[in-house]
Amino acid sequence: MAPKSAEEMAGSMREISVSQFFEKNRHLIGYDNKNRALLTVIKEAVDNSLDACQEAGMKPDILVKIQEMADDKIKLYVEDNGPGIPKDKLPNVFGKLLYGSKFHRLRQSRGQQGIGISGAVLYAQLTTNKPTWVASKTGADKPTNTLKLMLDTARNQAEIIEEKVDNDALKHQGTAVEMIIESKYKKGDQSVDEFLRQTAIANPYAKITLVVPGKDGQEKIVFPRVIDELPPQPKEIKPHPYGTELGTLRQMLKTSSTRSLQGFLTGEFSRVGDDSAKEICAKAKLDPKMKPEDVPQDQIEKLRKAMQEVKLMKPPTDCLAPIGEVALAEGLKKELQAEFVATVTRSPAVYSGRPFQIEAAVAYGGPNLQVEGAAKLIRLANRVPLLYQAGGCATTEAATSTNWKPYGITQTGQNMPQGPVAIFLHIASVWVPFTSESKDAIASNPEILEEMRLALQECGRRIGRYIKGKHSHQERARRMELFERYIPELANVTAELTGEKAEGIKKGLEIILAKNKNNYVETETAEEAGEKEAKKAAAETEDVEEE
Amino acid sequence: MAPKSAEEMAGSMREISVSQFFEKNRHLIGYDNKNRALLTVIKEAVDNSLDACQEAGMKPDILVKIQEMADDKIKLYVEDNGPGIPKDKLPNVFGKLLYGSKFHRLRQSRGQQGIGISGAVLYAQLTTNKPTWVASKTGADKPTNTLKLMLDTARNQAEIIEEKVDNDALKHQGTAVEMIIESKYKKGDQSVDEFLRQTAIANPYAKITLVVPGKDGQEKIVFPRVIDELPPQPKEIKPHPYGTELGTLRQMLKTSSTRSLQGFLTGEFSRVGDDSAKEICAKAKLDPKMKPEDVPQDQIEKLRKAMQEVKLMKPPTDCLAPIGEVALAEGLKKELQAEFVATVTRSPAVYSGRPFQIEAAVAYGGPNLQVEGAAKLIRLANRVPLLYQAGGCATTEAATSTNWKPYGITQTGQNMPQGPVAIFLHIASVWVPFTSESKDAIASNPEILEEMRLALQECGRRIGRYIKGKHSHQERARRMELFERYIPELANVTAELTGEKAEGIKKGLEIILAKNKNNYVETETAEEAGEKEAKKAAAETEDVEEE
Repeated sequence: MAPKSAEEMAGSMREISVSQFFEKNRHLIGYDNKNRALLTVIKEAVDNSLDACQEAGMKPDILVKIQEMADDKIKLYVEDNGPGIPKDKLPNVFGKLLYGSKFHRLRQSRGQQGIGISGAVLYAQLTTNKPTWVASKTGADKPTNTLKLMLDTARNQAEIIEEKVDNDALKHQGTAVEMIIESKYKKGDQSVDEFLRQTAIANPYAKITLVVPGKDGQEKIVFPRVIDELPPQPKEIKPHPYGTELGTLRQMLKTSSTRSLQGFLTGEFSRVGDDSAKEICAKAKLDPKMKPEDVPQDQIEKLRKAMQEVKLMKPPTDCLAPIGEVALAEGLKKELQAEFVATVTRSPAVYSGRPFQIEAAVAYGGPNLQVEGAAKLIRLANRVPLLYQAGGCATTEAATSTNWKPYGITQTGQNMPQGPVAIFLHIASVWVPFTSESKDAIASNPEILEEMRLALQECGRRIGRYIKGKHSHQERARRMELFERYIPELANVTAELTGEKAEGIKKGLEIILAKNKNNYVETETAEEAGEKEAKKAAAETEDVEEE
Repeated sequence: MAPKSAEEMAGSMREISVSQFFEKNRHLIGYDNKNRALLTVIKEAVDNSLDACQEAGMKPDILVKIQEMADDKIKLYVEDNGPGIPKDKLPNVFGKLLYGSKFHRLRQSRGQQGIGISGAVLYAQLTTNKPTWVASKTGADKPTNTLKLMLDTARNQAEIIEEKVDNDALKHQGTAVEMIIESKYKKGDQSVDEFLRQTAIANPYAKITLVVPGKDGQEKIVFPRVIDELPPQPKEIKPHPYGTELGTLRQMLKTSSTRSLQGFLTGEFSRVGDDSAKEICAKAKLDPKMKPEDVPQDQIEKLRKAMQEVKLMKPPTDCLAPIGEVALAEGLKKELQAEFVATVTRSPAVYSGRPFQIEAAVAYGGPNLQVEGAAKLIRLANRVPLLYQAGGCATTEAATSTNWKPYGITQTGQNMPQGPVAIFLHIASVWVPFTSESKDAIASNPEILEEMRLALQECGRRIGRYIKGKHSHQERARRMELFERYIPELANVTAELTGEKAEGIKKGLEIILAKNKNNYVETETAEEAGEKEAKKAAAETEDVEEE
């Protein structure tokens, strides 16, 4: 190929649409290969359903149906009983990448990018050339709007194939979607079954029904609703001054509808009252009454500096909805049949001005956790299970960089601990820093990593005390048994030495034994002894925290 | 927060511009934190310069200047002697995300997304609120156009602050860019120095000058041009029928300017001649003379199936430009001062219809490679060093899943091997499947992983033979020394037993020793013996390949 001039090279420059970008880079949105594709589509659809139900205050009842077709194709149907989507929004929600309501706000939700479900539509048409069918009904007395659509990648917008009202399509309020994709249905660690099983643990207020290909036709798996109450609604919050970047501040000043700088500061940020606003203005030597858009370009940096120097409360944390220590422990005990589970919900913390909260659990023993091999790691973000890219995830880094040996758990170097252990980590945040659009792994942000480690250490201490308590109970029982066996001999020897009657000495020894047994053994099993110790450890941690 | 209706929820839905998306997700494009930001910006600018020089057939001479400013700010200047960029393209190249000439074509280049340098402009304004300055001159007799610009994120387009001709700004043909960013300059494993050092190994035809803050003012580091010739220009290829997806085919049929289906197949794909095109049409039961856009929707799948069934040559591989075994070995020996280096350039292979080629090297011993600890891993994609996200990279998976023990290298489980070893892996491809837009890590595609493993195994065999050869040489030398020391005693004993004269026997033994020394020892050092063995291993591999 002959060398080119600047003009020749410029001739081939053009804009790339975001759909074309993700069509070519579909592994970035979870379509690495056809085995995985089914999970990604279901994850996107179920995330949307759970988010919509939660926001509308409705208890989710979700149906997922997987049908195998010829040539590695799958017909997939997902239906919810949520609020539904108005007719005029359907084309954009399903047929435009980077569209949605969750990107611009600060509030914990499963979706945050506006890529998910339209990415699934893109994958369907790319692999099977088939349009996606959508139905939605926004109220009991409303019509059911249906749509067949594809995605025009050059223009990143929906291409409507068919549009009609079909009141038979959906009997109740909600949304349904059906698509045909190239994929395979498989069981295993990274399967749809496993994803929905973990989803059920993290969302005990949802009912999920899964219909899959079985040995004799279709097989139904139901994850029932365990808690009959929705968790509290996470609230939307405003950005906190500490995490606001210069470019963002410039943009906010330019587009704000507030009339004064003081009003801008109190109205557009969280934790800024009139006094703090005045203090910020004074520090930045700006008039609190000036219009936000009139702040000179070269003064914006000073304003930002002042915003960071003024003492303010941490951002509010009612934008977060953690699972909770009790619900988590119950879910894990039930699901893993573990002998002992330690759960910790940390207090909310902040990274880059964004609130987040870490929950951890360590489960030990029981029939399901293998004695040989590495610990099982269960990872979630905003109640959504993460099944891929564990290697590049902050959760893995937190688990491997924790020193497990002091807790009686085997570990070689900075690797995953070994033994009958399952480690659970959940991040709840208004914005989870994922390492890619497929939202598989959490970036190793230092604040997040630190919170994860602290949570694991706390669980570790309890597990350690549990293991220790159980072992020393077993040890005591062993010694007591030995003592009991030698009582007659001991009585005889002592009788000879002292001249006392052997029978009396034997009785005395038996009383001592019984006392000891009462104190240490018969009141509890080894597991109970371990749990007692673990509770003490938990109480000690709380004392430390309260100090 | 009160539950919301479908209409209320829909009210907050809106489109997200791609700039807003990456502004919020800036860790996805390499701006995780301010320490890293400097490297990302330099990487993007240098990648562009090297790509432009290569395409224009010019030997690159690149200047990178880093100046520290107050408050963790850095003024960064990058200048090249490349073809330059025409004035009318400057705003889009620097001020619009997803814009460029490399996305739509199949040809090995460093850039491929059209995000890099405009992402840097976005980061600069976000952290310092300062515009980026650009200068470009497209020929010796052309004016130097300069521009100060920012990025309007809501509309994803350049906001021109100042525009003028300034012939003093750039004395020679090329492009220069200057920006002020929040960052820090540091030395170390993930530093700009290390990046440019590895860049120099992989691009020996480039001269790179780095000016950085030193102890006494600015310090200059020069990576000189080692090879005075540009590598052959990688050629642009057409897509191969085997890797074409249904959705892509549909789009191509719709927009092709060819007049017949036969012309479409021969003209828009590689490796399809008239005969193959006719065969495809016959298999799909389509008329070769029909217009491409007239192929019915429901026949496109049949057409694709036929395209995949017809026997075709593999895609051409002159679109690839590997570094080469010799250049790679020289570069690594010089840079690592290794005792021995085994390099392998595999034959090109194909994933999803896209050609790629793996190069590997294993270096052993020498003063720079630590005897204790894990092997050093050097990773490159299209001649660009990758310094982040090693944990999630196919290169790491290839290195840890290779069994190194048979090659005499220590390894526990599936971890990185231990000892004085450096492992080098390079993928050259028309499209590298990165795990994110920051292009830090290569996705674990099975074909790519397999090629990497095969390349490492081949290097491993040679290294193993080298180590074995060296050891057995040392062992022989040790035995010989022992023999020499006992010659007098041996001679006396033999004399007593046989009645011969001790003096004569001693001489005889000395002759035997000398012969052995000639054969095994004095002609070579242990290192040379190892190399001889390694060469034999390489020859054996080639024999196997030729069979």
